[in-house]
Amino acid sequence: MNHLVIMAGGIGSRFWPMSRPENPKQFIDVLGVGRTLLQLTIDRFGEEFSPENIWVVTSNKYASKVAEQLPSVPKDNILLEPCMRNTAPCIAYVTWKIKRVDPDATLVISPADHFVVNINEFRRVIRQGISFVKGSSNVLTLGMFPTRPDTGYGYIQAGDEISGSDICYVKAFKEKPQLPVAKQYLSDGGYYWNAGLFIWDAATAEAAMRLFEPEIAMLFDNMSAHFGTDKEEKTVDELFPQCRSISIDYAIMERMSGKNISLRGMNAGVYVLPSDFGWSDLGTWGSLYMQLDRDSMGNAIVGEENVRLIESNDCIVRASGDLKMVIQGLDGYIVADDNGTLLICKKNEEQRIKQFSESFNK
Amino acid sequence: MNHLVIMAGGIGSRFWPMSRPENPKQFIDVLGVGRTLLQLTIDRFGEEFSPENIWVVTSNKYASKVAEQLPSVPKDNILLEPCMRNTAPCIAYVTWKIKRVDPDATLVISPADHFVVNINEFRRVIRQGISFVKGSSNVLTLGMFPTRPDTGYGYIQAGDEISGSDICYVKAFKEKPQLPVAKQYLSDGGYYWNAGLFIWDAATAEAAMRLFEPEIAMLFDNMSAHFGTDKEEKTVDELFPQCRSISIDYAIMERMSGKNISLRGMNAGVYVLPSDFGWSDLGTWGSLYMQLDRDSMGNAIVGEENVRLIESNDCIVRASGDLKMVIQGLDGYIVADDNGTLLICKKNEEQRIKQFSESFNK
Repeated sequence: MNHLVIMAGGIGSRFWPMSRPENPKQFIDVLGVGRTLLQLTIDRFGEEFSPENIWVVTSNKYASKVAEQLPSVPKDNILLEPCMRNTAPCIAYVTWKIKRVDPDATLVISPADHFVVNINEFRRVIRQGISFVKGSSNVLTLGMFPTRPDTGYGYIQAGDEISGSDICYVKAFKEKPQLPVAKQYLSDGGYYWNAGLFIWDAATAEAAMRLFEPEIAMLFDNMSAHFGTDKEEKTVDELFPQCRSISIDYAIMERMSGKNISLRGMNAGVYVLPSDFGWSDLGTWGSLYMQLDRDSMGNAIVGEENVRLIESNDCIVRASGDLKMVIQGLDGYIVADDNGTLLICKKNEEQRIKQFSESFNK
Repeated sequence: MNHLVIMAGGIGSRFWPMSRPENPKQFIDVLGVGRTLLQLTIDRFGEEFSPENIWVVTSNKYASKVAEQLPSVPKDNILLEPCMRNTAPCIAYVTWKIKRVDPDATLVISPADHFVVNINEFRRVIRQGISFVKGSSNVLTLGMFPTRPDTGYGYIQAGDEISGSDICYVKAFKEKPQLPVAKQYLSDGGYYWNAGLFIWDAATAEAAMRLFEPEIAMLFDNMSAHFGTDKEEKTVDELFPQCRSISIDYAIMERMSGKNISLRGMNAGVYVLPSDFGWSDLGTWGSLYMQLDRDSMGNAIVGEENVRLIESNDCIVRASGDLKMVIQGLDGYIVADDNGTLLICKKNEEQRIKQFSESFNK
């Protein structure tokens, strides 16, 4: 069976004050469409996955938010991390859970807080990816066609195409580059943004974890003895924090790519499927601005009924609903309120939002 | 006896969103000093007036605010207008009330929402003014030395000084002038801002009202038959609205100045005492800005504990306490929140605040 795994444990610090550790962006209706990003993520996959095959891994402090926002997902499929250990332990947890109930599972792993424009193309890509990996020991990452030399993403360097397919072998994973390097990637071609979307069999995931992160694998072997019992929570609370904190990219993808490796008795490779379904990680106010409708003055507003803009251009305004805003004469600013906090800053200073968000801690 | 009369019925629309009809500026701690403008006004007069000789005329919807903010003022001294009829009926009301209990009263009449820097000089001027009018049928206005050609004030044109005194006969009252006229006033000299502060005997006020506004005088004759009885409120609610709406300046001051008039069997004149005690009517955000301390970047902040300014200059920020504000990169703006409404506008557009305040009515 195909299983959908949503990683929903992030804290979204770059979207302050809308997004905060108590209520990060995946749980917020960022786009003002009446659905949170988590809900939109599930919606996007549509009926390709039945609810009992949808899994959400999140921090235990968000358990009730997930259950509330996704009432159709079984409670037992909401996995709670007692602490943040990055994505490798997160994926190990859900892999060990799923392989108990479905050893032949294929896992589609997705962040909870991204945005996709063309959902039909997205579903086509997912279906193509599932059929590519199923029964093999390959892992397939989805590579986003880069539209600008963004220094906020990791890049996937593609090698040759598999003959008769648009799927390529992965030459290398590249960390967030400096601007000249990012520009070089774009002019060279064959580089794709790493969106954190990938597909592999649960058996491949397990085998890769045993090979590259044997300690994490051992900890989950110990935990899984109690899965489905009333000791599960206690054991996870005790052993999960012993996992080292490491991303799935560092732990497995990078080590597995560009090498001759065998998993499950088969040649194992890392592949990339260049994808063009209009993607945004909504990682910043600026990237949200790109996705929202704008008025004739270039202003993007979420929560329009509470905002009046006068002689203002190129602003992004997000009104939580707690505050009515009358704004005159702003050009190129972010104005956002949430939870009794207001941020006003220049749009081109948004990379400093984390700093701004700490203003009241000093 | 000397009586202090505070006119506290204004609605302060130019200070939106801090000041609104439900809670206008005289009832607000505009300066962030822990006392409202009404309280500061009473404080300013000090112990020159005992509480039973302090009177507040306000709208009946502000009755509880006045009582709460001025606990020492007797409840019976808080006079409630059932509707707004400008200052002439307001002053008639309090005059008819006071003359019943103290026919020899001298009245010092003051707005509730102004600001004075030099309180000692202010008190000296008030004492001088009282002794000038007491027992005479003169009215003395306090004229503020103009520091700029402000077009937001009326001007008092002074004539000759009374010999041996700095008090001048008033030649004319001038309405709010156009800028070239205001500039001419300043270069000519002998023109003073009309601050709405004046002093006269209650008997003079009564006689002037009978002469210039006999209808209003008659209405109060009828009302005063019920003063001190349980029919007072009902009678005032019924007859007060029948008064025509007119300012004391139009109704009496202008008509009385520059003429040979007799009141109480004596020559009656209008005089001005040029005063220099550092006055502001705090009529606009800009005039508030002038009175507040500013940081090294020229920012004036009320509610500092809830505001963090980064790379911002020449701003005036007023945080109500409901909202924490982080503001980056603003130059010359007003940012103010109150009651769930936020205003951001350029400081030099503040004359349009009334328009901005109506944004949500459309």
